[in-house]
Amino acid sequence: MNSKNISADPIILAFDDELDLGRRLSDRSGYALATIETHRFPDGEWRLKLPPVLPRRVVLLRGLDHPAEKLVHLLIAARTARELGAHDLSLLSPYLCYMRQDARFSPGEAVSQRIVGGFLAQLFDAVVTVDPHLHRISRLDEAIPIPRAVAVSAAAEIGRFVAARAPGSVLIGPDEESRQWVHMAAEVAGADYGICLKARRGDRDVTVARPDIAVAGRRVVLVDDVASTGHTLAAAARGLLGDGAVRVDVAVTHALLAPEAMTMLRDSGIGEVWSCTTVVHSTNSIDVTSLLVSALRTALR
Amino acid sequence: MNSKNISADPIILAFDDELDLGRRLSDRSGYALATIETHRFPDGEWRLKLPPVLPRRVVLLRGLDHPAEKLVHLLIAARTARELGAHDLSLLSPYLCYMRQDARFSPGEAVSQRIVGGFLAQLFDAVVTVDPHLHRISRLDEAIPIPRAVAVSAAAEIGRFVAARAPGSVLIGPDEESRQWVHMAAEVAGADYGICLKARRGDRDVTVARPDIAVAGRRVVLVDDVASTGHTLAAAARGLLGDGAVRVDVAVTHALLAPEAMTMLRDSGIGEVWSCTTVVHSTNSIDVTSLLVSALRTALR
Repeated sequence: MNSKNISADPIILAFDDELDLGRRLSDRSGYALATIETHRFPDGEWRLKLPPVLPRRVVLLRGLDHPAEKLVHLLIAARTARELGAHDLSLLSPYLCYMRQDARFSPGEAVSQRIVGGFLAQLFDAVVTVDPHLHRISRLDEAIPIPRAVAVSAAAEIGRFVAARAPGSVLIGPDEESRQWVHMAAEVAGADYGICLKARRGDRDVTVARPDIAVAGRRVVLVDDVASTGHTLAAAARGLLGDGAVRVDVAVTHALLAPEAMTMLRDSGIGEVWSCTTVVHSTNSIDVTSLLVSALRTALR
Repeated sequence: MNSKNISADPIILAFDDELDLGRRLSDRSGYALATIETHRFPDGEWRLKLPPVLPRRVVLLRGLDHPAEKLVHLLIAARTARELGAHDLSLLSPYLCYMRQDARFSPGEAVSQRIVGGFLAQLFDAVVTVDPHLHRISRLDEAIPIPRAVAVSAAAEIGRFVAARAPGSVLIGPDEESRQWVHMAAEVAGADYGICLKARRGDRDVTVARPDIAVAGRRVVLVDDVASTGHTLAAAARGLLGDGAVRVDVAVTHALLAPEAMTMLRDSGIGEVWSCTTVVHSTNSIDVTSLLVSALRTALR
């Protein structure tokens, strides 16, 4: 064995509630896996316990759904990892929080993207994520000001999944913002695609989303980067079914959908919901482990 | 009016869920009050909105019970306040979180006091708090490394309250750590006091807390800085009643007690629970507004 190479390899440090993804990443990458044990006190404080000694290179795995608890976990774990020997500390966060509040929409409003990005930049030497919903900026290092800020997209994985699971479907983005993901997924799937645009309909002057491509008689897959309340997807599905689509399913990178949102999606006529494994959710169908490992290798170059 | 003095006065910036304490502080200090509007999105992110323009000196009011959500509030609000003009930014936190995890009790464990203290030191020029449960260190600026870190104790307020409400009571601390608060409260109240010490009792070798002063036939007030699960207070109360105390009430600075903890306290034979207004709680009885204003003036000197 070559001890030089071994010592140069990072370890993946996973929280005890995220060990499944940690194990898959470890298996795929060959990097060792270690655990952060967590305990929540009745007053809401957390006790974290890391391995007593860490190598120089450490990758902290933490998706940032449930953002408040997990940002505090990151603060405590990252500082402790440094104390215990981590010199080059990366964050692998399959889902980043607070990336959508990227401008002061009204006077006095907090620009949380910049603030949370700056917070992460202080804690980590590298950050790796999937589809961070950058809108007014084009690169992740504008939100997280460090040289090794790597964002990859799951749109190609979504395209491959849809081609296998729902061949012949037309891919539709529920709004203009989703164009980049739908376009990429459709290219990979070899599928037609379109975007829903806001339009006024009929006598009661209701604003609905209408696709810019004919869907009558066709099967549709709605594609987006993140689903939270589900309202945008539900409105789009109702419009598409009203326009004659024979079936509407959903493929999304990050599923943050609460149970009541899932009920609303079903009530809107949506068939299945498929999500990537970036956020643990009942709809997880599209494994992004390989994508994460390749993004991580880029950041650790 | 003297515009120079007015511009030198700080404003108090209170979150919309903490306006009651903000108003009392504003009334007592003469400092103007402004509000931070909060909105929680379904995915757990927060939108914060501050006054569009801030004066140079700003006091952010935020108690840190429910620590995860409120530490994230602090991060976002403090950075935004700087962007909007705050040059000298103080935190008035009647209750500080994470002050008890002040050593690495086993290998790999996070020393959260130091980490959260460092986080606050990065955000604020001054920090003011009440009874931060410092144990292995003696000064707040050892936990929060900034020159203007001010901790005051509510023990004298508790002593005055007990003297008026339960005259003639003996004051008891439930464990050795509480000695400093009980001693000060008893001095102010002109009352006897003692401390419960761990001792083994009788045939079944059960460890109980026994006071180092006779309580038979006397009324007792248990005094402590913070009550979270209530287990320590309940065990002490059972011991005191077993030793013949005629009544046991509780006076505590910070009441973090959940409803089930309150039930347990009542089941242990405790009469009333009186807490300071540092944490909003159903047991609030002891107003610490004046104490907070005087501590704030020290920090703003």
